[in-house]
Amino acid sequence: MSVYFETVKTQNNARAGVIHTPHGDILTPVFAPVGTQATVKAVLPRDLREIGASLVLSNTYHLFLRPGSDLVAEMGGLHRFMRWDQPILTDSGGFQVFSLAKINRIDDDGVTFRSHIDGSARRLTPEIATGIQHQLGADIIMCFDQCPPPTDYATAAAAVDRTSAWAARCHQAHGTDTAQALFGIQQGGVFEELRARSSDALLKLDFPGYAVGGLAVGESKPQMYATLESCVPMLPADKPRYLMGVGAPDDLAQGVLRGIDMFDCVLPTRIARHGAVFTFDGTLNMGNLAHARDESPIDPTCDCLCCQNFSRAYIRHLIKARELLAHTLLSIHNLRFLIRHMEALRAAILAGDGQLQAYVDSFLLRYLRG
Amino acid sequence: MSVYFETVKTQNNARAGVIHTPHGDILTPVFAPVGTQATVKAVLPRDLREIGASLVLSNTYHLFLRPGSDLVAEMGGLHRFMRWDQPILTDSGGFQVFSLAKINRIDDDGVTFRSHIDGSARRLTPEIATGIQHQLGADIIMCFDQCPPPTDYATAAAAVDRTSAWAARCHQAHGTDTAQALFGIQQGGVFEELRARSSDALLKLDFPGYAVGGLAVGESKPQMYATLESCVPMLPADKPRYLMGVGAPDDLAQGVLRGIDMFDCVLPTRIARHGAVFTFDGTLNMGNLAHARDESPIDPTCDCLCCQNFSRAYIRHLIKARELLAHTLLSIHNLRFLIRHMEALRAAILAGDGQLQAYVDSFLLRYLRG
Repeated sequence: MSVYFETVKTQNNARAGVIHTPHGDILTPVFAPVGTQATVKAVLPRDLREIGASLVLSNTYHLFLRPGSDLVAEMGGLHRFMRWDQPILTDSGGFQVFSLAKINRIDDDGVTFRSHIDGSARRLTPEIATGIQHQLGADIIMCFDQCPPPTDYATAAAAVDRTSAWAARCHQAHGTDTAQALFGIQQGGVFEELRARSSDALLKLDFPGYAVGGLAVGESKPQMYATLESCVPMLPADKPRYLMGVGAPDDLAQGVLRGIDMFDCVLPTRIARHGAVFTFDGTLNMGNLAHARDESPIDPTCDCLCCQNFSRAYIRHLIKARELLAHTLLSIHNLRFLIRHMEALRAAILAGDGQLQAYVDSFLLRYLRG
Repeated sequence: MSVYFETVKTQNNARAGVIHTPHGDILTPVFAPVGTQATVKAVLPRDLREIGASLVLSNTYHLFLRPGSDLVAEMGGLHRFMRWDQPILTDSGGFQVFSLAKINRIDDDGVTFRSHIDGSARRLTPEIATGIQHQLGADIIMCFDQCPPPTDYATAAAAVDRTSAWAARCHQAHGTDTAQALFGIQQGGVFEELRARSSDALLKLDFPGYAVGGLAVGESKPQMYATLESCVPMLPADKPRYLMGVGAPDDLAQGVLRGIDMFDCVLPTRIARHGAVFTFDGTLNMGNLAHARDESPIDPTCDCLCCQNFSRAYIRHLIKARELLAHTLLSIHNLRFLIRHMEALRAAILAGDGQLQAYVDSFLLRYLRG
């Protein structure tokens, strides 16, 4: 098996580990920057390396529509196309066909939808989504799933059964003769019995990793944390556990405490393009007048290119002048902030008993007060 | 004198030289990237250094309006504010008040206009423009001038006289107790006798450098080249000569042949943001379908970050997907193209008799055919 997980140390439910992949090791817990369209928006691969990114996520739905997975395959695959020689994960497109596309029809076989780009009719099935991900060539690929609103029982139950059936088909389509690892996605909304039903079905297929899907899509934070407490222990301890689409700094800490190893989210780069930055004292809007004559960096303790070079005054000027460099600098800072946060969480797990909870408590106290 | 010019070698009218400044030496002929609002759009200072940029231009008009020159001064000056520790040149705002602002009134004392940003009433005079440039702190600053359409004799004549009077006032306002160098700007449109009248007035003030202003603003290329042939020899051989606002690759070669040492232009970064790139075979539109499956770089001989890493196919994808990284990569390539071009022109001058004309002939033959 080309992708496999090793636990280095545990602390209660939390784990520090390593995911080995054909493109190098991923130290966990890990936050993966999102490069939706084969680029982390406004950030060069060189700068991603410099801030310590290891795993990058890209979106099957977007690449399928543009430039097309056949083109990416012809250009040597996604690593070569976007010049990221470290691990890549692609999602299955399941989330986007329900959130972005104009859906025409969902049936047990798959989804027919219209492209949000040109309105063209497209179809994704478990087999097609797996085939596209083979063309893209990411190290970790995902099962095609149905991600419903999290708090409606009947919808969530139907989505679990469909996702289970689709997981079996993805598993079959994926085969065994590949260095790519196919992960299963647990669904079930906020309902413990549905999460259990979903896990039972997936575990029979013995995936090399499992995602918790269908969270951070409308439920409250306490609901999300409670769901994680019940659903994460359903997943095998010797496989990586991936909480999809979660990237708020407090949620990362809460997820790690509950046994999650992998996260991804557009949040850090999206808020950057709106002038907002993460700090240990909460989120700041760098466009505020308060920063106009402030010579200090966003965070004097931060080692990123932005904080090592530029003042808040300059950054505010770039935002007000609508300069593209603001997007680049704030994206780099926000990604580095989350990666430092993950490094600190990992170090706290490795440091031994009690250190993780202590770090999280002190982080949350300051961050949530900000 | 903190800014001074040394000629290293001449070849007919062309010169290879060095401009010494408080922030380092500028090897000439030189092309200066434009950082209108204290940032070369979409390009980090680090990447400017890496492509061999030395002199960067920024715009007094824009910085006066936003964030304000007092703020830049308070933040330690423009070098520190934008983190460019090599030489900077600021223009005087003269060009922009005539081209960008809604002009309310021009009189012999100065110009009252409305900001293009917020419509606020503003005023620039020779003394104010010089004072702003003192606050910004560039190594080379420019006289406040009037830049009229180039082919109307009466307007051009009036602008010469006003520019001459304003140059004397800038010279007076600048004083002698400063490390900044104030350059004069020759006007006169395409008319030799007006260029001579302008030069005569400026030379009496003994500036440490002289610009040719009022070209590339509507006249034909043959008119521009003919004007350079007559007006450049009017400027002293021992001072740097700066052709303002010119950056097309063929014009750079023609300018160097005619004795110009310095150029600036938004062209390379502006066309980059529209998907166009310089190559030795002319300008290409990277959004064209022809590049969709092309694995080769824009220019296999180019040493820039873009060409060393990314395929035409990927760049076209970024353009079609409206990804910000396209602006960064194409801006870096276009700037590096012009800087390589200037390096080649300088090397040809240093190589001795006949080499410059030979390089320019072969460059133009290929470039203009493209």
